[in-house]
Amino acid sequence: MNTKLSGWDDTIVALATPPGIGALGIIRLSGKGAIEIVNQLFPSKDLAMEASHTLHVGFLKNDERVLDEVVVSLYKAPRSYTGENIAEITCHGSSFIHQQIIEACIEQGARLAKPGEFTQRAFLNGKLDLTQAEAVADLIASNTSASHKTALTNIRGGFSQTLKMLREQLLTFSALIELELDFSGEDVEFADRIQLKNLISKARQQTEELLRSFKFGNVIKNGVNTAIIGKPNAGKSTLLNVLLNEERAIVSEMPGTTRDTIEEVMNIDGILFRLIDTAGIRSGAVDEIETVGIERSLQKRQDADIVIYLFDVAEIEAPELKLIIAEMNEFDFLLVGNKVDVIGEEAAREKFSTTGEIIFISAKENAHVDILKEKMVGLVLQDNVQTENIIVTNARHYHALQEVNRSLTDIEEGMKNKLTSDLLALDIRRCLQYLGEITGEITNEDQLDYIFSKFCIGK
Amino acid sequence: MNTKLSGWDDTIVALATPPGIGALGIIRLSGKGAIEIVNQLFPSKDLAMEASHTLHVGFLKNDERVLDEVVVSLYKAPRSYTGENIAEITCHGSSFIHQQIIEACIEQGARLAKPGEFTQRAFLNGKLDLTQAEAVADLIASNTSASHKTALTNIRGGFSQTLKMLREQLLTFSALIELELDFSGEDVEFADRIQLKNLISKARQQTEELLRSFKFGNVIKNGVNTAIIGKPNAGKSTLLNVLLNEERAIVSEMPGTTRDTIEEVMNIDGILFRLIDTAGIRSGAVDEIETVGIERSLQKRQDADIVIYLFDVAEIEAPELKLIIAEMNEFDFLLVGNKVDVIGEEAAREKFSTTGEIIFISAKENAHVDILKEKMVGLVLQDNVQTENIIVTNARHYHALQEVNRSLTDIEEGMKNKLTSDLLALDIRRCLQYLGEITGEITNEDQLDYIFSKFCIGK
Repeated sequence: MNTKLSGWDDTIVALATPPGIGALGIIRLSGKGAIEIVNQLFPSKDLAMEASHTLHVGFLKNDERVLDEVVVSLYKAPRSYTGENIAEITCHGSSFIHQQIIEACIEQGARLAKPGEFTQRAFLNGKLDLTQAEAVADLIASNTSASHKTALTNIRGGFSQTLKMLREQLLTFSALIELELDFSGEDVEFADRIQLKNLISKARQQTEELLRSFKFGNVIKNGVNTAIIGKPNAGKSTLLNVLLNEERAIVSEMPGTTRDTIEEVMNIDGILFRLIDTAGIRSGAVDEIETVGIERSLQKRQDADIVIYLFDVAEIEAPELKLIIAEMNEFDFLLVGNKVDVIGEEAAREKFSTTGEIIFISAKENAHVDILKEKMVGLVLQDNVQTENIIVTNARHYHALQEVNRSLTDIEEGMKNKLTSDLLALDIRRCLQYLGEITGEITNEDQLDYIFSKFCIGK
Repeated sequence: MNTKLSGWDDTIVALATPPGIGALGIIRLSGKGAIEIVNQLFPSKDLAMEASHTLHVGFLKNDERVLDEVVVSLYKAPRSYTGENIAEITCHGSSFIHQQIIEACIEQGARLAKPGEFTQRAFLNGKLDLTQAEAVADLIASNTSASHKTALTNIRGGFSQTLKMLREQLLTFSALIELELDFSGEDVEFADRIQLKNLISKARQQTEELLRSFKFGNVIKNGVNTAIIGKPNAGKSTLLNVLLNEERAIVSEMPGTTRDTIEEVMNIDGILFRLIDTAGIRSGAVDEIETVGIERSLQKRQDADIVIYLFDVAEIEAPELKLIIAEMNEFDFLLVGNKVDVIGEEAAREKFSTTGEIIFISAKENAHVDILKEKMVGLVLQDNVQTENIIVTNARHYHALQEVNRSLTDIEEGMKNKLTSDLLALDIRRCLQYLGEITGEITNEDQLDYIFSKFCIGK
């Protein structure tokens, strides 16, 4: 179904488990010669004669030198991840041994796999479409239940399914238009224009819903950048500690990513909140806003998806707070009144009864911090699609969907302006082209190489 | 054959691959319930009905929530590493997924494995003796061809074989002595005393050879601590760079190990040289010896197995060099004359013709540095056993062998002093006891727990 890659008949090899010391490691080979190459190093059995999906224990030898005692897993084409012959060598988890075995495989005719090349082959052999392949990388990088779930939904073809429905609607439309083209000299309209308009309008609706989901998808994938701001002594560092003590997330770093700012990460209800620029809070630096001059402070936090404005209920008056709120309105923010233990919650509520919604807490006594967390999650979910729906998490998909949406708008406009069928057909073809690029039905080699180069080696 | 551990019938689970992000990870379960527990999470097949040594692809689910698409490897007792039922789940390499799967297995009745517990069970089920089990940990930590080879020889039972021969000789001796005990009232000597003496002397020889091999074994396992010393401007940092540029070893760190000094590591002919305290060299700190006051500098380097004394052939005279050599004699050292490019190699040779063996190099021009490397390897191998022999690399084995040797000396002494057979029999039993401790024929639970606690989790 797809373009073939150069060097496509050869056998690739790579370490598939993280590097470093552990009990076990897996070295994976895929390609026509995968089983033969491993068999050259595995003299105790004739692996070519063994059934697919079987395990074989023995010593791996290079000439007479023993490399390791290993287990070889066999998957015969086409019943494998890539659709090719796959042999996986489960060896001991030592970098030295991995290196020795990979070198021995290369001597026997394999070559080192490029990043993502196993998944790329799976795609080229029609085992996965492109959105499923991309979801594999997302799954590996997932670190919350939300990102995990979205990636798995996509691996199982959830997103592809939605796109397929969209495509089918467009094809129905296209068929009707093309029919008119055949009779273009006769100036007939087979396609009911009202029905057509409904079709396109429905397709646009779906596309726009998917586009909207990207904001949430991005949050799922990358976390919510959260800034805690407020005057000195509002209790920011106490709040930070209370939040982190309970919900600190263990986030495994992607190799190669660097962080520009010192941040702490916590996982609330499966959503990752990245508390940005916590260095300033921890060090107690007085770089926070002084009174109403909030702008500079917010500029510094322009990366924030949500802002938590923390104030001391005893130290601020309602009018001042109203001014602050007025300057915050362009942000998704939560207003948090701290230190209610000092003046009492009732008094605090009364004092700020005209100021809009405030979450009253005592960070020191860990009172109502659970409500704050609930509101944080609520702020992220507020105008977002239901989590049961398909969510776009991939920037490549998002940009292609934007083009799809643009084409749909052009078609709508065209119909309004009574454009001829042949011009409408052009727009519809452009629209189908972008949809095809998402799932990989229409691709080029460069684009594929770029997509898979972002995978880890061995996948 | 061995003491049973408490909780021995339960099923253990652990991540067996290094933590972190990669294409794949392996979660390993061992115990009576291993296959049933995984089957609870793997609804698409009845794994209990499947053959041993087979692979099963499917979705892992906890209730209705999909955890991952995985491959399950089945090994049925006793045909497995531990001798118990083993199920290995090969999943995607994300810490989040690993955690989810391990938690699900625990919900189904497994418990987290302790470090080394899989290998401990293999030992307790008679799949490995203790020296073989310990060699598994050494194999994983191996980072040179020498350490790799020694560990593999031991996994395959090389060391055990040698100990078994030693033991058999002692048992022959013991049998003869015991026979005399049966007739102790009659004052007969069944055992030919000359033959006995030869037996013990041969056993002592072997034990001493093994003990001697430990120095080399330690070097193989931990590397050779190498100090480069010399006056300021002798060219230490240039030499360091030349050595490291060519032979720098990639050494994966054991989690939990800390380094006291900054060191660089290089691999020459399969032997690891650790260049200790290179920080001082790199920073050009003038803490090196000034003239003859070498002692303080050497004390600082008391950890060094070998010392490279580097001097500038133009800047030092033969008499001074002789004084330095005199103070170095307690060390394994190499005398290296640097900067021969300045005065010429011939002139340098003549200048120091009476000073003993000097390796003349030019670090700047990378001349004869290969000879230095050869000599470094030579210094390590000099009075060491041939690498084809069995080498003791484990401190526990070394200490037990010292006790074996002590008992053998006692027996020899006893025979010289015409000790009675019953006293000789006591010594021989002590000797056999220590031998048995090495291979694990005689053990106690605490000792086992200690040995396996040094393994990584999942092994």
